[in-house]
Amino acid sequence: MKIYNFSAGPACLPHEVLLQAQQELVSYGQSGMSVMEMSHRSADYEAIHAKAQADLRELLAIPDNYHVLFVQGGASMQFSMVPINLMTNHRRAYYLKTGAFAKKAISEAKKVGEVIVPASSEDKTFSYIPDTTADMFAQPADYVHITHNNTIYGTRFTKLPDTNGLPLVTDMSSSILSEVIDVRDYGLIYAGAQKNIGPAGLTIVIIRDDLIGKAPEGTSSMLDYSIYAQNDSMFNTPPTYGIYIAGLVFAYLLKNGGLPAMQARNEKKAALLYDYLDSSSLFKPTANKKDRSMMNVTFVTGDTELDKKFIAECKAFGIVNIKGHRSVGGMRASIYNAMPVQGIETLIDVMKEFEKKA
Amino acid sequence: MKIYNFSAGPACLPHEVLLQAQQELVSYGQSGMSVMEMSHRSADYEAIHAKAQADLRELLAIPDNYHVLFVQGGASMQFSMVPINLMTNHRRAYYLKTGAFAKKAISEAKKVGEVIVPASSEDKTFSYIPDTTADMFAQPADYVHITHNNTIYGTRFTKLPDTNGLPLVTDMSSSILSEVIDVRDYGLIYAGAQKNIGPAGLTIVIIRDDLIGKAPEGTSSMLDYSIYAQNDSMFNTPPTYGIYIAGLVFAYLLKNGGLPAMQARNEKKAALLYDYLDSSSLFKPTANKKDRSMMNVTFVTGDTELDKKFIAECKAFGIVNIKGHRSVGGMRASIYNAMPVQGIETLIDVMKEFEKKA
Repeated sequence: MKIYNFSAGPACLPHEVLLQAQQELVSYGQSGMSVMEMSHRSADYEAIHAKAQADLRELLAIPDNYHVLFVQGGASMQFSMVPINLMTNHRRAYYLKTGAFAKKAISEAKKVGEVIVPASSEDKTFSYIPDTTADMFAQPADYVHITHNNTIYGTRFTKLPDTNGLPLVTDMSSSILSEVIDVRDYGLIYAGAQKNIGPAGLTIVIIRDDLIGKAPEGTSSMLDYSIYAQNDSMFNTPPTYGIYIAGLVFAYLLKNGGLPAMQARNEKKAALLYDYLDSSSLFKPTANKKDRSMMNVTFVTGDTELDKKFIAECKAFGIVNIKGHRSVGGMRASIYNAMPVQGIETLIDVMKEFEKKA
Repeated sequence: MKIYNFSAGPACLPHEVLLQAQQELVSYGQSGMSVMEMSHRSADYEAIHAKAQADLRELLAIPDNYHVLFVQGGASMQFSMVPINLMTNHRRAYYLKTGAFAKKAISEAKKVGEVIVPASSEDKTFSYIPDTTADMFAQPADYVHITHNNTIYGTRFTKLPDTNGLPLVTDMSSSILSEVIDVRDYGLIYAGAQKNIGPAGLTIVIIRDDLIGKAPEGTSSMLDYSIYAQNDSMFNTPPTYGIYIAGLVFAYLLKNGGLPAMQARNEKKAALLYDYLDSSSLFKPTANKKDRSMMNVTFVTGDTELDKKFIAECKAFGIVNIKGHRSVGGMRASIYNAMPVQGIETLIDVMKEFEKKA
C-alpha cells in the first residue's frame, strides 16, 4: 500500500531523491565508496559540499553578503547560538511568543541576556499571530526573533513585523524552501533540516556578514558562527551524509522549478485541505484564518474519541502520522514540499467518508 | 576495481551494513518509508533507537550506572561539553597533551576553567605517550582527560594513567569498539561516530551517573548531559539516520563475535603491517613502538618526493586516502574494524613492490 507520511518532522522526502540515494549508497559515482565513508577532505566530498551550498544559494537567491553555514544540533542548538553570538551589544533582544518552539527559544535566550516579549498568542493556545508595530521595538536591542512557521499550532507569519530597523532573526525550520522569500528581510535564518531539507542532524544557518564575529571571547568554538564561516563549515567533520541528502533535495527542487513552483504547488495543496475543512461540518481548522500555515494544517472534530477513531481509520488508507501534537490534540497534516497532491486528495477523501458515517 | 579506503574518518563501514542500508533506504521493513522520514516519536524509530543503545551496552558491557547518550557536534563539541559539565567543583582538570585533538580539547577547556598539563609528547611531534605517576595528579581537580588513541600521530594509551582517584575522561573517537575495554575504568567516554561507528554527525557519550547533573545553572540545554540523560537523547530530534546506521554496525559487530573477535582481528591486522614496516629498509613507522596505535598506522620513507610517488602509485591498486595528515606528512593507514585483512595485505604487497623498485 502507498503510504502518505504526514509527520511533522522528520518528514517525507522526495521519492526521486530516496531512489538516487539508494542507488548511490554503496558506491558514489566512480569512487567505490559510500558518501558516508568519504573523508570530508576528499575531492568527491568537497564537490558535494560546495554544490549543496551553491544550489541552496540559487534556490533562495541568497545575496553575496550572507554566509551559508552547515551546523549541528537542530533548531534547539540555535536557540542558544543565536543569543550567544548576537545578544552581545545591548545584551537585549525581542522575541515574539507564538508557539512552543518560540517559548523554548525564549527560555534559552534568557540564559544569555534580557528578553523582551512584546507580543504573545499564548492566551488562545497560539492559534494566531499577534499584530505588532514598530514602536513595540523602540528600546535598543540586538535583534527581533520570530518563529516563521509554528509547526505545532499551524500558524505562520504571512507578513513580517516592522522591527524598527533591528535585525530580524527567524527559526524557519518548518517553512524554509516552501515559498519564495527575500533573504534580505532577515539578519539570520536558521532551520533544522528534518522537515523540508533532509535528515535530522543537519541545521542550516544563513547569516548576514555583519552579524558574524560578535561572539564574546571564550565562546566555545563549536558555538561561534565565525568559526563556521572562516572554515566553510569544516572546522570539524560536518554531518557529511546529511549534507549530501540535502544537496540531492536542493538539486531536485531546482530541477522542478525552484521555489516559485514549490510555492504554487504548496498553495494549491493547502487550499485543497483548508477549503474542505472550511466546508466540513465535522472537522474544524484550529488556526486563525489569516495566519494559517501552508505546511502544518491543524484540525479537530471537537470530540477526542472521534479524533482517535479518525486517526485509526486513516491508517487503513496509508495515511500515517496525522495525530496532532500532544499539546494540542486533534489532527495535524504536515504537508511539506515532498507531500504529493495525491496525499492531500486521499486524506480529503477519507475525511469525507468519515464525515458521512459520523 | 576493489577500493580499500584507508581514510582516518569518515572511514570505511562494513560492506554488509551498507548493503542492508541500501536495501532498506526507500522503505524500512513494513513501514513504507525511509528511516530518514520517520518521526523520532514513531514506534519504528523508537525501536531502532532502543536497540542501538542496548547493542552498544552489550558490546562494551556497559554497567547499569552509566548512561549512553546520543549527541551531536562531534568530539569537538565534547571538548566544550566535558569541561562545562564536569569542571564545576574544583574548576580544574588535568589534560595529557598527546596530539592535535588533545591540544584542541585543552584549548576549549581553558575557556571554562584551569587546565593543568602534567605531561606532553609535543617535544617529539607526539610520537609517544608520556609516562605519568599518580603524584602528578595530586592537586584537587574534577577529572583527568586523555585522548585514548591519537588519530593523527598513530599512538595510543596501552596502559591507562593512575589518576590518583580522579575520574578519567577520554576521547575514544578513533579506538572505540576496536578492542575490549573496561568501561568502569572511565568516568566518561566520548567518541565521534565517523571512524568505528557510523556516519559523521553522531557522537556517543558514555557517562557514569554521578557525573551527570553538575552543569551550572544557565547552561544551554543542548550542552547539558542531564537533559540528554533525562530525555533518552530525545530532548530534541536526534540524528536519527546516523543512529540507525550505528545500530546496524553494532548488530554486525555482535553477530561477528563482538569486541573480543574485533580485537583479535585488529591485533592481527596491525601486526601484519607493523611487522612489515619493522623489516622494511624503505618505510619507517613513526610512532614509538610500545605506544603504537592499532587503528592508525603512520609511516614515512624519509623523502617527501618518494612519499608522494608512493601515494600516487597506491591509487592504481585501489588503495586510497593513505596520505598522512598535513601536520605529519608521510603516510597513514587507518585500519578500523571495517578494513578487511585483504586491504592490509594488498597495501603490504604494493609497499614491497615499491621498495624493490626504489
